[in-house]
Amino acid sequence: MRVLVVGATGAVGSAVAQTLADRGHEVVRVGRTRGEHRVDLTSDASVEALFGVIGTVDAIVCTSGGMHFGHLASMRPADFDVGLQGKLLGQVRLALIGQHALTDGGSITLTSGIDEPILQAVNASAVNAAVEGFVRAAAIELSRGVRINAVSPTVMTESLPTFGPFFPGYPSVPAARVAQAYVRSIEGPQTGRVYRVWE
Amino acid sequence: MRVLVVGATGAVGSAVAQTLADRGHEVVRVGRTRGEHRVDLTSDASVEALFGVIGTVDAIVCTSGGMHFGHLASMRPADFDVGLQGKLLGQVRLALIGQHALTDGGSITLTSGIDEPILQAVNASAVNAAVEGFVRAAAIELSRGVRINAVSPTVMTESLPTFGPFFPGYPSVPAARVAQAYVRSIEGPQTGRVYRVWE
Repeated sequence: MRVLVVGATGAVGSAVAQTLADRGHEVVRVGRTRGEHRVDLTSDASVEALFGVIGTVDAIVCTSGGMHFGHLASMRPADFDVGLQGKLLGQVRLALIGQHALTDGGSITLTSGIDEPILQAVNASAVNAAVEGFVRAAAIELSRGVRINAVSPTVMTESLPTFGPFFPGYPSVPAARVAQAYVRSIEGPQTGRVYRVWE
Repeated sequence: MRVLVVGATGAVGSAVAQTLADRGHEVVRVGRTRGEHRVDLTSDASVEALFGVIGTVDAIVCTSGGMHFGHLASMRPADFDVGLQGKLLGQVRLALIGQHALTDGGSITLTSGIDEPILQAVNASAVNAAVEGFVRAAAIELSRGVRINAVSPTVMTESLPTFGPFFPGYPSVPAARVAQAYVRSIEGPQTGRVYRVWE
């Protein structure tokens, strides 16, 4: 299959791109500032231009999108909007525009995250839940056999130096294991599913 | 208790305000265009001005916020952002700013909605899930015994003329019954809960 991976230079995305390439897929790697192609997921025009260049694909994967981390007591609405415009609307934008660039029976796989509440992560909790809500509802509306799923990873072993302190007592998972959930979404038959990779 | 009800002129909010008043609470009714006080939940300044006028309260209830309804195939990112800026960030804004206007042990009660996917409601599914994700995460960060919960109502009996066609086979619930869930949140001891009123 020809698979678009947006966020392909990130920790999750690079593992997904590598795993897909190892399985014989043609991977179109896209990053925000690096990669074969570039895209700004906060811009309709940028996403439309991307599909204009790469054309039709069999699967779309998104592992990209910023969020705000910080204490609730000092959080401002604009802080919270960072994740809404980034990881949430960015991924939704890719899905809404990308649905028309998929072959029949193609798939969209978005990224949420573990939904155990942790400190300083109200924005992440809301955004991840929203991505999953979007996926559940979009699955019943997509046409031409197009499917949509989400992968919900916990903290990755490779990310422990940065994010480990936020996840006390949480088993980490290797990126290669997280990547398998994307394979399940892309190559499998399911839709409207959230694949949890929590331990 | 002194309870702020934002959305007090709407279908849910008016039932909540009436039920609270009947139980002896002092209800401060706020609407967007009508009501004792006015607030624009898309504006930090408007929400801050509201608390500047009304002062401290024992409970904050929000039953307000717009969303986009429409088919996925023709949905644009700007359509999806309607619910993010409306029902999601609007309620979060009220909670973030309002947390500092609550008495010790006070509560915040937001409104989500049934999470069964229905057609033309991907925005609602995402927004409602996000409100619940926010509530679960905010509950572990609030200080001074302040609590936060959400009420998830299905379609209300009073709203069937408008929304009934979107909910085939879904039992409706009377507004007075939905209002009881807000009472449970305000007068009860729980936090981080989602009270589902689905049948």
